[in-house]
Amino acid sequence: MAGHVIGAGHDVTVWNRTPAKAEALTSQGAREAHSPGEAAREAEIVVTMLADDHAVESAVLHEGGVLDNLAKGALHVSMSTISVALSERLALAHHARGQQYVAAPVFGRPDAAAAGKLFVVAAGPAAAIERARPVLESMGQRVFVIGEKPEMANVVKVSGNFLIAAVIESLGEAIALTRKYGIEPNAYVEFLTSTLFAAPVYKTYGGLIAARNHHPAGFRMRLGLKDVKLALAAAEAKDAPLPLGSLIRDHMLAALARGMEEQDWSAVAKIVAANAGLE
Amino acid sequence: MAGHVIGAGHDVTVWNRTPAKAEALTSQGAREAHSPGEAAREAEIVVTMLADDHAVESAVLHEGGVLDNLAKGALHVSMSTISVALSERLALAHHARGQQYVAAPVFGRPDAAAAGKLFVVAAGPAAAIERARPVLESMGQRVFVIGEKPEMANVVKVSGNFLIAAVIESLGEAIALTRKYGIEPNAYVEFLTSTLFAAPVYKTYGGLIAARNHHPAGFRMRLGLKDVKLALAAAEAKDAPLPLGSLIRDHMLAALARGMEEQDWSAVAKIVAANAGLE
Amino acid sequence: MAGHVIGAGHDVTVWNRTPAKAEALTSQGAREAHSPGEAAREAEIVVTMLADDHAVESAVLHEGGVLDNLAKGALHVSMSTISVALSERLALAHHARGQQYVAAPVFGRPDAAAAGKLFVVAAGPAAAIERARPVLESMGQRVFVIGEKPEMANVVKVSGNFLIAAVIESLGEAIALTRKYGIEPNAYVEFLTSTLFAAPVYKTYGGLIAARNHHPAGFRMRLGLKDVKLALAAAEAKDAPLPLGSLIRDHMLAALARGMEEQDWSAVAKIVAANAGLE
Amino acid sequence: MAGHVIGAGHDVTVWNRTPAKAEALTSQGAREAHSPGEAAREAEIVVTMLADDHAVESAVLHEGGVLDNLAKGALHVSMSTISVALSERLALAHHARGQQYVAAPVFGRPDAAAAGKLFVVAAGPAAAIERARPVLESMGQRVFVIGEKPEMANVVKVSGNFLIAAVIESLGEAIALTRKYGIEPNAYVEFLTSTLFAAPVYKTYGGLIAARNHHPAGFRMRLGLKDVKLALAAAEAKDAPLPLGSLIRDHMLAALARGMEEQDWSAVAKIVAANAGLE
Repeated sequence: MAGHVIGAGHDVTVWNRTPAKAEALTSQGAREAHSPGEAAREAEIVVTMLADDHAVESAVLHEGGVLDNLAKGALHVSMSTISVALSERLALAHHARGQQYVAAPVFGRPDAAAAGKLFVVAAGPAAAIERARPVLESMGQRVFVIGEKPEMANVVKVSGNFLIAAVIESLGEAIALTRKYGIEPNAYVEFLTSTLFAAPVYKTYGGLIAARNHHPAGFRMRLGLKDVKLALAAAEAKDAPLPLGSLIRDHMLAALARGMEEQDWSAVAKIVAANAGLE
Repeated sequence: MAGHVIGAGHDVTVWNRTPAKAEALTSQGAREAHSPGEAAREAEIVVTMLADDHAVESAVLHEGGVLDNLAKGALHVSMSTISVALSERLALAHHARGQQYVAAPVFGRPDAAAAGKLFVVAAGPAAAIERARPVLESMGQRVFVIGEKPEMANVVKVSGNFLIAAVIESLGEAIALTRKYGIEPNAYVEFLTSTLFAAPVYKTYGGLIAARNHHPAGFRMRLGLKDVKLALAAAEAKDAPLPLGSLIRDHMLAALARGMEEQDWSAVAKIVAANAGLE
Repeated sequence: MAGHVIGAGHDVTVWNRTPAKAEALTSQGAREAHSPGEAAREAEIVVTMLADDHAVESAVLHEGGVLDNLAKGALHVSMSTISVALSERLALAHHARGQQYVAAPVFGRPDAAAAGKLFVVAAGPAAAIERARPVLESMGQRVFVIGEKPEMANVVKVSGNFLIAAVIESLGEAIALTRKYGIEPNAYVEFLTSTLFAAPVYKTYGGLIAARNHHPAGFRMRLGLKDVKLALAAAEAKDAPLPLGSLIRDHMLAALARGMEEQDWSAVAKIVAANAGLE
Repeated sequence: MAGHVIGAGHDVTVWNRTPAKAEALTSQGAREAHSPGEAAREAEIVVTMLADDHAVESAVLHEGGVLDNLAKGALHVSMSTISVALSERLALAHHARGQQYVAAPVFGRPDAAAAGKLFVVAAGPAAAIERARPVLESMGQRVFVIGEKPEMANVVKVSGNFLIAAVIESLGEAIALTRKYGIEPNAYVEFLTSTLFAAPVYKTYGGLIAARNHHPAGFRMRLGLKDVKLALAAAEAKDAPLPLGSLIRDHMLAALARGMEEQDWSAVAKIVAANAGLE
């Protein structure tokens, strides 16, 4: 992602917890900072793309981090998959410092990121969005602006991951049912994805489940659980139940309890299959 | 569907419970029978396309019906959405009479049927399938052969409708969640269906749920419930749970209990929304 | 049960599918009939206590059964655990023949039946109930009259069994949770049943689950599933969801799918435990 | 509770966030402290009984709190309903300071506390439990020792509250089902609690649900939700699903979303009833 920003002609300073990972970028012309705070100090726009809430809190909110170093009027674009609650806290914290804040999480696998083909979902004040746009467009094939409150983008992100998890759960149940009648799973998935469900997400996960191919993980079970829990937490904060989310969470916990820590999140289908007496 | 069979040059006799409905076909050259038994009497292939188990039992299994009149060696192609259990009974009954039996339910809305663009899922002994193929191909854009046991095709059909219901449930939950954060539902669905979920089923049902447009019904709630129950019953017959199916069934019952008898099955999203305090 | 009726001085004719089972009663003075119809022919009151819907339909509704032989004005007391729908059909059928009908299912294990300590739940027209009362009181420690429509008693029976299944499910989950923290299950159940949950149903099922003692079965898994399904069907007939019933049904199906056919219905706790990674 | 400790002859210092609440105790001979830290300073045993995790963290773990002031070798008895995770943190923190720690949450309503009739569930090192015993016995009718790890007592407490919530959910569903058939709910509950479910928890909650009497709240909905979430969190920390817990949580969220903030947690039965089309 940062490579695409450099490629678009922006002046880029990078920081990574693992300095070796920054090297490819310094060789493309980026400067290297030794801390998030240092990276933020003279930036017009700081982009964060980190693993989880904890990493973002540490880089942004801790003493000497981005918040303390970003200039008044400068902009923080948060692209990580984080909780809606943390995005709300970031919005307040930046506002209190006279800084701008945009949430702009992305959809797409690592190869889409490498190809600059991510989908970007952005939310925040219109002026801040426009300021971020050239950077966002350098990384994604399309930028969707969702609303004026930054956390809206995070809600869209977590709800999108919930919808993917729902596809996995529903395919897992449908494939278990058809297997009980002796239907060959690959042929079944081929039928589904040639007709009503001709979307990549059905092809990807249908194929993995039909082949019972969950290792190595494209997206590990515990990360999948984390994302479903982000959706549940966002809903709970508004007193909204998400019963399918609860069901998926329970199946993912069972998967972890039964030793699937290293497997892809699509392995929840194995819990469904086991409860149907398959394998 | 019958019009396409006539159009393909087959010699067709038609029967409909409501004789007026047969007229369009007799004007195209079909003969009219006054009972299912009469229609079957001299046929090489009998195609049934009826509302539900009850209608098929009445036309086929009752005294003087298709079973009693079909010649030895002739073929019954059952295209209705019926229970897996009934399809198994039909297979046994035809076998006992020395008749052939193929199950070939279809996917597609009425406009796809009119255009000859249905997807046909067929199962049965290979020779019977080949015999049925010209007729099936006249009605559908593609014929998928799923296995040698006729009921397999019915399992695929009911599992497919279950997967559509799962799309409705998951979209209903995701849209309720995003609405709680003030996100405009049409923009949200536009985003989803331009990116990860670019399948017609997401566009159709996402659009209906976003617009809260469930009346008049494309597919009425009680018919939707019937289909989800067919999937649950097929699973139960093999001692397989289908927990997402149970969840959807419960939401559909709540929809009916709360007066949504005349609404589209996508109105389950209103139950989800109501439980989130929306409306 | 019949022994208590004889003991109370009533003139009793018995029929059992397995004649040997009637012997103990004939030795106490009962006459033996060779068919349900014969037993009904000269009776003032016919009591049926049979395994399931199928057995009751066969004994009562089939040609030459109780319905055909019972005198006008005589009374049928149905004590079996049957579906609400069948009880409604029986009420209509007897009414059409000018016969009386009372539903009076019971709660209690075989030892309670032997001791005349069953709880009887009766429903039907007041006059019919009063006519049945001396017989019912001879079999039970207490007779509860629930309403004027016979099926009400069957609803109470199936809802009661659902409540017992709910106790099993909840104890299964609580014991799995506490076991994960190393808490000894017998001590835990001892605590629960000495304090908040001092009811026999918690003692019985808590003890079985803590000891993982599900074989031989006091009440077999498939019978448990049958009863939960009776509750779900009664609710469904009124468009009412029973989400906890759905959850229990799914766990029982998983238990059967995983080979627990011969185990007690309390073995659903093993499904819960397995999903928590225990054993 | 503190009154009973005083009454048993112990020398007591009290602190309450609302000083007026301490007055009744000072009039019985207690000394008053102006902070939790001050109360702990010269104590042999500190007992905390506070609203939630936040209150306990503030009183114990914050600078100048109990932890900082308690003497080496002295004992902290935590009786609040707190998370298992916080109890684990407290155990570690006290251990690091050379202090003793026992968790001893209680079951019982305010009137049981006033009467010294609480049930106390205690866990911790045996010597610390014995040291706490005279104080615990002054407050409760019985002290159950559950294990050597303090958090075990908290797990028992949260699992116990989960079991009560399960009783509410199951009664809500059973009463909705029977109401759909016209059965009078008070008579139904009277039947249940005279027979199979003769435990106070069924009487209390069955009575409230039958009478639809949820206001004023004995235990408010959001507190009920908090407790169910404590059980879910304790299970999640061990990768254990608690599917009935998830179901109850979702119903409680729906209750809150639909405006039942001020109602008793038994009002989840109204969500169940509404989904059955009642009211």
